[in-house]
Amino acid sequence: MENFVHNIPTQLHFGKDAIACLPEVIGRYGKNVLLVYGGGSIRKIGLYDRIMDLLKDCNVVECGGIEPNPRIESVERGSVLCKENHIDVVLAAGGGSTIDAAKAICVGAYFEGDDYWEIVTTKGVKRKALPLVDILTLSATGSEFDGGGVISNLKTNEKMGNSFTYPSVSICDPQYTYSVNAYQTAAGSIDIMSHVLEGYFSRNEGVDLSDGIAEVILKSVIRNLPIALKKPDDYEARANLMMASSVACSGIPEYGKTYSGWVCHGLEHELSAWYDITHGVGLAIVTPVWMRYILKKDPSITPRFVSFAKNVFHLEDEDDTKLAYKGIDELEKFFTETGIPMKLSQLGIDDVHFEEMAQHVNRTGRLSNASVSLTEEDAVNILRMCL
Amino acid sequence: MENFVHNIPTQLHFGKDAIACLPEVIGRYGKNVLLVYGGGSIRKIGLYDRIMDLLKDCNVVECGGIEPNPRIESVERGSVLCKENHIDVVLAAGGGSTIDAAKAICVGAYFEGDDYWEIVTTKGVKRKALPLVDILTLSATGSEFDGGGVISNLKTNEKMGNSFTYPSVSICDPQYTYSVNAYQTAAGSIDIMSHVLEGYFSRNEGVDLSDGIAEVILKSVIRNLPIALKKPDDYEARANLMMASSVACSGIPEYGKTYSGWVCHGLEHELSAWYDITHGVGLAIVTPVWMRYILKKDPSITPRFVSFAKNVFHLEDEDDTKLAYKGIDELEKFFTETGIPMKLSQLGIDDVHFEEMAQHVNRTGRLSNASVSLTEEDAVNILRMCL
Repeated sequence: MENFVHNIPTQLHFGKDAIACLPEVIGRYGKNVLLVYGGGSIRKIGLYDRIMDLLKDCNVVECGGIEPNPRIESVERGSVLCKENHIDVVLAAGGGSTIDAAKAICVGAYFEGDDYWEIVTTKGVKRKALPLVDILTLSATGSEFDGGGVISNLKTNEKMGNSFTYPSVSICDPQYTYSVNAYQTAAGSIDIMSHVLEGYFSRNEGVDLSDGIAEVILKSVIRNLPIALKKPDDYEARANLMMASSVACSGIPEYGKTYSGWVCHGLEHELSAWYDITHGVGLAIVTPVWMRYILKKDPSITPRFVSFAKNVFHLEDEDDTKLAYKGIDELEKFFTETGIPMKLSQLGIDDVHFEEMAQHVNRTGRLSNASVSLTEEDAVNILRMCL
Repeated sequence: MENFVHNIPTQLHFGKDAIACLPEVIGRYGKNVLLVYGGGSIRKIGLYDRIMDLLKDCNVVECGGIEPNPRIESVERGSVLCKENHIDVVLAAGGGSTIDAAKAICVGAYFEGDDYWEIVTTKGVKRKALPLVDILTLSATGSEFDGGGVISNLKTNEKMGNSFTYPSVSICDPQYTYSVNAYQTAAGSIDIMSHVLEGYFSRNEGVDLSDGIAEVILKSVIRNLPIALKKPDDYEARANLMMASSVACSGIPEYGKTYSGWVCHGLEHELSAWYDITHGVGLAIVTPVWMRYILKKDPSITPRFVSFAKNVFHLEDEDDTKLAYKGIDELEKFFTETGIPMKLSQLGIDDVHFEEMAQHVNRTGRLSNASVSLTEEDAVNILRMCL
């Protein structure tokens, strides 16, 4: 069992009309607020007007138009707005992309260089950052309960994660996710599952608390996603998905476990960087293929897949190998039934950049150090099988 | 589903030799340290010497002798030491009692009145407090990951909880629990289970993430406690118990659930206040009796007990009522097999104070507002059945 540090200072205000705390929360930091948001869905659901009403005594500067895979140009734009307007606190209203961009903006507000991409590529440094408050509108990335963000650079075809800053307060009202369409609801839920699955296939045994909590999160998503797809305004289903989003990224499902490489996230970030696809859809396509590939390459990982099949899907088989594959089949079936595309070719992706992607994802040894060690050739094979 | 706020700013440094961070952690606050500890077990396990070595550049003032049910006199003594020695940070090394006392001392350091009991009885106020760091040596109360503490007043026969301050950093090395004897290991583990059980029997349905996590914690303790009792230096067993201690008090197992009254804790605090018994032993005696009592009094709670029997103990029965009782029997059997006393009479307790206890525990409506509403007469009946 590995040592770990738990360090999440974020307050979660969760539930119906949790936003009522906004004036008090923003008031802790000042009156000059940068409001970061995406394509305008917060207007459609009335959230924009509610925020403006609650913050009528503040100076709200707007930074809208954050992209679904947020770009470094948006981070730069927001950072400059912070500097120009003496911003006291950044308020992000949206999903993971908006919150990720806002985290980078909080750091960018103090950045003194010329190339803002540096704040994404500079790792392992604790940086000064403006305080961040967010209002979550999509259950997916867990960005509301961690310090990381993923930013894209379309010039260099890079999509990179980094540690920026933790939200001080995350406001989580499941009702704001009622209007999220089926495609994004499914993709977001698969992202939640992936955050747990990436750690689950570390080889550690005996971490039954972490493994058990990981399985509970998976089972909760498996139970609640179909309900939310059928009845988008089912409060309990949306609430369970929203809680799962945060707990999946709390670190708790990986307490005591060895870092597994997060291979599917690595490969998916490459795909998104080149083709700007929806993160959760990329994960849904890559994950079952990766699972079968590592199980075939190194059958000693079979017991982990047996636990997965038994404890998450309640499957049985006298033959462990068969049971392991049954679990993967069941997961793939679950993804498929949500109605999202399950082939890269359906997203207009071909194999021309696969070698480059494999090299790029492994530049930090992420493939070779994974729980089942993979070569760049393996990664290309996996991506080809996803076509 | 209820709204909730998650707000735990505590950093957990968990694992083998996690204490190595101590000089850096203490250095964040200053050089004047109040070391709070209990009866000297930290000397036996070498922890005292290790602390003194790591803090050789600090001025360490000692406040030892904290009682197992920590008393207000000890809180006053520590608070006065803080004032006299210009303490910058309080370092608690011990179990929940020591950490609870240290939390109250952190608040007491700024207390300006005459009667320190006021800091325990004054509720709902955010108070100024010295920063607190702790080194956990017993997996039980979860005090390392919450803001509360329970203090006893032997003059008034009161044992009361209050919210004081969150530890800034909790250092959790499971190896420090190797020397905890079987009795205390069992009692501590039952306390962990109780923190989950108290919330589990709220009536909310549809909070499957919280309920699932509660069940995982219970199952993890049920699996690991017998291992730790048989082989006290089994790292994985001790580590799972220590993680369970923190996660049980993280609030996560109760996300979205209605406050249930925490009746068993209420009754046990009365018993401890009058008879100074071990908290976890009192809980082990009261809990199964309380369970059977509320199940009989209000059979509409049966579905919760059915979930408990099925999901925690994997029991089956076509008759729900029988299944519900089977689950309680199984829990009682588990407690009994740890070897602790399971009758109040074995602890020298008789019924002379039961009426007084029942009145006192219900002074805030804790019994009447519980998930199965109880009268003071019910409470006396429950206590009598524990004799």
